[in-house]
Amino acid sequence: MNAMILNIGNELLIGQVINTNASYISKQLNSHGIQVNKIEVVGDDKKEILSALNEGQNFDLVIITGGLGPTKDDITKHSLAEFMDDILTENKLVLKDIEALLKKRGRQMNILNQQQALVLSQCRVIRNFVGTAPGMIMKKNNTFYVSLPGVPFEMKPMMKEIINVLSKEYVLNRILHKTLLVFGIPESELALKLEEWETQLQDSDIQLAYLPNRNFIRLRLSAYNANEDIENKIAFYTHQLKLILNKHLIGEEVFAQNDDNPIAASLVNLLKEKGLTISFAESCTGGSIASIITKIPGASDVFLGGIVSYDNAVKKKMLNVREQTLTQYGAVSKECVEEMVMGLKNLLKTNITLSVSGIAGPTGGTADKPVGTVWMSLYFDDKIETKLFEFGEHSREYIIDSAVFNALAWILKKLIHL
Amino acid sequence: MNAMILNIGNELLIGQVINTNASYISKQLNSHGIQVNKIEVVGDDKKEILSALNEGQNFDLVIITGGLGPTKDDITKHSLAEFMDDILTENKLVLKDIEALLKKRGRQMNILNQQQALVLSQCRVIRNFVGTAPGMIMKKNNTFYVSLPGVPFEMKPMMKEIINVLSKEYVLNRILHKTLLVFGIPESELALKLEEWETQLQDSDIQLAYLPNRNFIRLRLSAYNANEDIENKIAFYTHQLKLILNKHLIGEEVFAQNDDNPIAASLVNLLKEKGLTISFAESCTGGSIASIITKIPGASDVFLGGIVSYDNAVKKKMLNVREQTLTQYGAVSKECVEEMVMGLKNLLKTNITLSVSGIAGPTGGTADKPVGTVWMSLYFDDKIETKLFEFGEHSREYIIDSAVFNALAWILKKLIHL
Repeated sequence: MNAMILNIGNELLIGQVINTNASYISKQLNSHGIQVNKIEVVGDDKKEILSALNEGQNFDLVIITGGLGPTKDDITKHSLAEFMDDILTENKLVLKDIEALLKKRGRQMNILNQQQALVLSQCRVIRNFVGTAPGMIMKKNNTFYVSLPGVPFEMKPMMKEIINVLSKEYVLNRILHKTLLVFGIPESELALKLEEWETQLQDSDIQLAYLPNRNFIRLRLSAYNANEDIENKIAFYTHQLKLILNKHLIGEEVFAQNDDNPIAASLVNLLKEKGLTISFAESCTGGSIASIITKIPGASDVFLGGIVSYDNAVKKKMLNVREQTLTQYGAVSKECVEEMVMGLKNLLKTNITLSVSGIAGPTGGTADKPVGTVWMSLYFDDKIETKLFEFGEHSREYIIDSAVFNALAWILKKLIHL
Repeated sequence: MNAMILNIGNELLIGQVINTNASYISKQLNSHGIQVNKIEVVGDDKKEILSALNEGQNFDLVIITGGLGPTKDDITKHSLAEFMDDILTENKLVLKDIEALLKKRGRQMNILNQQQALVLSQCRVIRNFVGTAPGMIMKKNNTFYVSLPGVPFEMKPMMKEIINVLSKEYVLNRILHKTLLVFGIPESELALKLEEWETQLQDSDIQLAYLPNRNFIRLRLSAYNANEDIENKIAFYTHQLKLILNKHLIGEEVFAQNDDNPIAASLVNLLKEKGLTISFAESCTGGSIASIITKIPGASDVFLGGIVSYDNAVKKKMLNVREQTLTQYGAVSKECVEEMVMGLKNLLKTNITLSVSGIAGPTGGTADKPVGTVWMSLYFDDKIETKLFEFGEHSREYIIDSAVFNALAWILKKLIHL
């Protein structure tokens, strides 16, 4: 079964909203054996919507999001009715759901809420228990069209229902992905290193992809029509791959976990495995490291807490950084991060403590210490190591992200290659 | 001038990577007067790429990202050569750039790096100073095709260059957007409230859009062919709108700022305006509030720091929460967040301090305090207020996000409606 995703909304075309719906839906379909071959985004414009719906006939399934709100700019439902040659009629069950929802929120039904109960007369309704726009499943010729609201919080539970419906009516393929996280080697060197190993894949049903980002490379093995034999082969190739990658391997991405941050997930898993605790003293990253770790389920087993010592007064008061250190060396210095890390380690007594202080910009840089200068200190195993990173005069966001990644990768490499 | 964005990569179709390139490029084009009418995502598949390139002929401009890496799965360049009926030739300038970049990184040139210097013989090269894949501008009939690497960090500076080239050769329209952030009123009620005001817009060149998300609604006024007259009209309508919205208004989105978090940006701006400082004591949000504030340029003027008291030991040791409070009421309680907020306020003496403690799940919920229970306490103006939020048994991510948003909105409403 193959699919197209159609996201409708001017907010996507002007870049006001990032299209997280497409990646969520793709991942859901993919992990249930439905291959997405195309994603399209069009505006709230009937002609454009009709043309995209028409193109959808080349696929078995079209998942549509957006344009179902109660306001005048939302026209998906009317466009669908025209495309399906159908009319909109009030659905009693949907109306009841809307009434119940409004009651729960202590609101009165109004004319616009009531119009939300209009659905295509020939559709199968997918109920929405957290919003007023129902989902709809329709069929035209050989294609299923599914219309869902664009608010992710409403769309997500409805996607589960869609997958249920589809997997009951179809035998779906098994799609497998295995992703390793690689650090400290450029993509081209990695490709040459893997050349010989890669030849084995040529006659198999397994595809290899290199996904570099600024900080690391994902190496992904994929099979779109998997069986036990292929699964075993992937396990075998992965094993070989790990040996070749050696010290460049920093983790594995658990695809189904919907990890926004596979590096943080790897770290939490590894700390748990080894029974170690961790804490952070953050200046320029302002709590980003702590918050990324906290978002991983199970973080509470390993993460005790930390201090966001953004202002120097906080460094002194909470981390016992000495006034003299700050005046003599400054807050962005080897001396300061070492006092920060010892200050926090003495307070919380975690097995691992990391401190970070740097200049994220856009202001605050000097000739000596330009924007992008970041010091970090790592306490582990009764030793302190301190490193200087120079990320260059990039945006504030870039520098904070780089600092966070390098902090996590540093700790990961320490733990993996103990 | 209208445009289509074409993002190439299997990682986008399987949902492994969120398509932030599309929103970045859209925003850039939009703020320079180029309207994006369509976004398409296809896989690393020659047939699909050629078909999308062909469709691109309906637009003045096609911006293509991805598939320019040195490895076998990257086929965009070859597909473009076929589409343009052109050949790939080595470009000396690009080769030099690659050499310089490798040298800076202490790396040797290899055969795959060298192939990165192959470009379409008829293209205009856009240099890449932070990666090995050059950009290309080509023309077929009346359409400009621009090919850029998919790594955001490499693509972004090249987009600036593209805008420069285009704005020199074309007179571009002026596109204006004005977005207000609205809180505490459902979309349908808002639409009815604005019905009369909205009628004024009908004969103007100004469009209104409602963009609800889980936490708030963006109300956006847009003009795609703006002049001074239209700009004045937008200012006038916005003024009226603010009066109608009254207490539901919690800020304005500065569209060009590329704000990931307009609520946090509004708060930092407002604190700066009023000369107030702020700090946070975070348990279940684990530093998320601090990190979101830190990411806003200028945060250092208002944000002093905070404590991530994830573990109870940290609450006691750093925030002076009493052992008895924890045993009698638990860490997720009115009593605990009130001691947390006073503990931090006494340490840092900021004008505003907020504390938060809750159960983000997936484990840790009880019948009394199910997953989603979050207490917050706000110190401001020598008073403490404490609130209970019940976000429901949703995902960890959902509960943390809800807590962060409600914390920021609470403070914003206090400051706006002083």
